[in-house]
Amino acid sequence: MDIAAAMDRAVEASYAAMGVSSPNPPVGAVILAADGTLAGVGATQPPGGPHAEVMALRAAGEAARGGTAIVTLEPCNHTGRTGPCSQALIEAGVAEVHYAVGDPNPVAAGGADTLRAAGVRVTGGVAADTVENGPLRPWLTRQRLGRPMVTAKIAAGVDGRIAAPDGTSQWITGPEARDHAHRQRAHLDAIVIGTGTALADNPTLTARTSAGGLYPQQPSRVVLGHRDLPADANLRDDTGGPLVLVRSHDPADVLAALPDALWVLVEGGPHILGAFFDAGLVDEVHAYVAPMVLGAGRSSVEIPGVITLADAKRFRTAHTTTLGDDVLITLARRSPTIRQD
Amino acid sequence: MDIAAAMDRAVEASYAAMGVSSPNPPVGAVILAADGTLAGVGATQPPGGPHAEVMALRAAGEAARGGTAIVTLEPCNHTGRTGPCSQALIEAGVAEVHYAVGDPNPVAAGGADTLRAAGVRVTGGVAADTVENGPLRPWLTRQRLGRPMVTAKIAAGVDGRIAAPDGTSQWITGPEARDHAHRQRAHLDAIVIGTGTALADNPTLTARTSAGGLYPQQPSRVVLGHRDLPADANLRDDTGGPLVLVRSHDPADVLAALPDALWVLVEGGPHILGAFFDAGLVDEVHAYVAPMVLGAGRSSVEIPGVITLADAKRFRTAHTTTLGDDVLITLARRSPTIRQD
Ligand SMILES: NC(=O)c1ccc[n+]([C@@H]2O[C@H](COP(=O)([O-])OP(=O)(O)OC[C@H]3O[C@@H](n4cnc5c(N)ncnc54)[C@H](OP(=O)(O)O)[C@@H]3O)[C@@H](O)[C@H]2O)c1
Ligand SMILES: NC(=O)c1ccc[n+]([C@@H]2O[C@H](COP(=O)([O-])OP(=O)(O)OC[C@H]3O[C@@H](n4cnc5c(N)ncnc54)[C@H](OP(=O)(O)O)[C@@H]3O)[C@@H](O)[C@H]2O)c1
Repeated sequence: MDIAAAMDRAVEASYAAMGVSSPNPPVGAVILAADGTLAGVGATQPPGGPHAEVMALRAAGEAARGGTAIVTLEPCNHTGRTGPCSQALIEAGVAEVHYAVGDPNPVAAGGADTLRAAGVRVTGGVAADTVENGPLRPWLTRQRLGRPMVTAKIAAGVDGRIAAPDGTSQWITGPEARDHAHRQRAHLDAIVIGTGTALADNPTLTARTSAGGLYPQQPSRVVLGHRDLPADANLRDDTGGPLVLVRSHDPADVLAALPDALWVLVEGGPHILGAFFDAGLVDEVHAYVAPMVLGAGRSSVEIPGVITLADAKRFRTAHTTTLGDDVLITLARRSPTIRQD
Repeated sequence: MDIAAAMDRAVEASYAAMGVSSPNPPVGAVILAADGTLAGVGATQPPGGPHAEVMALRAAGEAARGGTAIVTLEPCNHTGRTGPCSQALIEAGVAEVHYAVGDPNPVAAGGADTLRAAGVRVTGGVAADTVENGPLRPWLTRQRLGRPMVTAKIAAGVDGRIAAPDGTSQWITGPEARDHAHRQRAHLDAIVIGTGTALADNPTLTARTSAGGLYPQQPSRVVLGHRDLPADANLRDDTGGPLVLVRSHDPADVLAALPDALWVLVEGGPHILGAFFDAGLVDEVHAYVAPMVLGAGRSSVEIPGVITLADAKRFRTAHTTTLGDDVLITLARRSPTIRQD
């Protein structure tokens, strides 16, 4: 297996750690034996558990000696709840290390130098773009901005309507789009809705498989607004993630209430989405566009202060994909490090 | 050149005839010489002018003898303003004819039989799907339903807003999407707007190249509604197509006022689009989705009677494409022959 293919495997493995590893980065690692055959794959375990490199080394055993490690993030140099990964790689006798993204965290950085000092050949920046804009993006956002990455989800017809005048909104998108949204929930730290949606729809906000079962990883369920939820609200059941009530109208208070979260999805309704857009706190938009026109009813986003076109929140189109009969358009910030406002 | 490649060329040629040939079908034809080399390409000329086969035969000259004709529509058998194409092909000594779509028009049909009776080998149904769903679709719609094909155009942000509260709406989509829309105008028979849009925006509705020049083919400009346009309205200038004022609120009156039209684009505003959707008169939707959220202002479609989600006008996603930073989603009827309502 060549380095590029091994990095693809490492990236794939790291996706499984998203939502699970928080607040640590979801990392993937692959060990190739000295003869280039695949010897081990690993991903970051929940906090307190082993990092990706250690998982991959354990899977490889003696085959790691003289081999190559391929990792999505620079191996850490930090003795926290687990020992430093740079040391583990040296002790296992790995001869070469290729990583995608350098560690921006000053406490953990320096792994590459430690490895080089021990005589290991080290290459950084392999597939850096893919990893930075993929599984490590939420964690990098937290490192850079001190808050989780925020994705705003919109599911609407081509005219932007999310519900008919009588409030009916099931189903606008089809089963493939809904499955996609549920798979995504299993990678999130939290889903945010407003009291309006919580009271109107009584949702569960659990991550469910298409067969109806629960994914092992369940995001926190956050409700923003002053009103209380009834005692029998579905959000109060214990099948999903923790319920967090943020009795405020300020989206920044949601992010402050989630100090360990890397990736947060704002599902609506329109006023909550509007508040996040208006505060410049949306990094990404997932717009599921259904092949229908409703012609009346609520629009997906409401921002009270908007008057003229110059007030529009502009993004760039990062990706489009077809999900059954719906289209998912992913928008990203126009400039990755500048606030969108 | 093989038959499939020749049909591609014929289809391409027929696109140039869209809007030009109306009410006749925009047909493309290719003549291959007996040795298979390309001898001529032709497309339907404006009414009274030669059909595609005659244009291609003229280009081929003597090379047509013993050769093959590839045509997007079954050659006509009808002596109208021009002689029957089946006769022209026989006289030119063509040995083989391949066509895509059979002629559903009883007056013109029978060309294939005439050719066979004269000893020409004839094959129908070549690339029939591509042609039926491509350049011949507007004409086939008129043959089947007695009215033009209607495309509804929406250009909005992901929240479906087409203008800010103060009425500003320039520019939501980018230059590539606007160029695409102008290229399309040059293939249309008519563009329809409401008096609201005509009075608010004072548009020209001409088909312009990206350099600002006028395309040779200009669609009719139709305004629906009771109010009159001012004497100095841009729509009254003579650079564009004919101005048609339909003083009614019934979209069927627009179609009745365009007896020769094959393809009509409804550009808005929201009430006019709503009226066409509500009447079940939309065959296709072109939704240009810009990477922005406005959060306030008008939505692209308004349908007064809609109450519940079951009232939604449902289509299927036929195609998506990226135009610069915008996404064009094309919706088609869920069932091609059944009214959408
Ligand atoms: N199709 C879809 O994808 C989808 C998704 C979500 C929702 N929906 C629909 O959306 C509808 C609910 O809409 P909604 O707008 O009432 O719900 P919402 O946006 O979920 O909640 C609005 C409420 O949140 C509170 N709030 C918190 N921060 C706020 C802020 N910055 N600005 C304004 N209000 C804030 C206020 O309630 P307090 O008085 O309690 O503070 C407000 O009334 C439901 O019909 C639901 O079905 C559809
Ligand atoms: N971004 C875009 O792509 C785009 C495209 C088009 C328009 N727009 C915007 O849309 C706004 C205009 O919206 P609008 O809704 O006022 O314009 P509209 O839909 O163009 O026109 C509405 C008017 O058309 C007449 N009408 C004809 N048939 C009707 C029917 N069946 N139902 C209702 N009215 C009918 C009525 O006027 P009478 O009293 O004269 O009968 C009505 O007031 C403008 O601000 C324009 O900029 C944006």
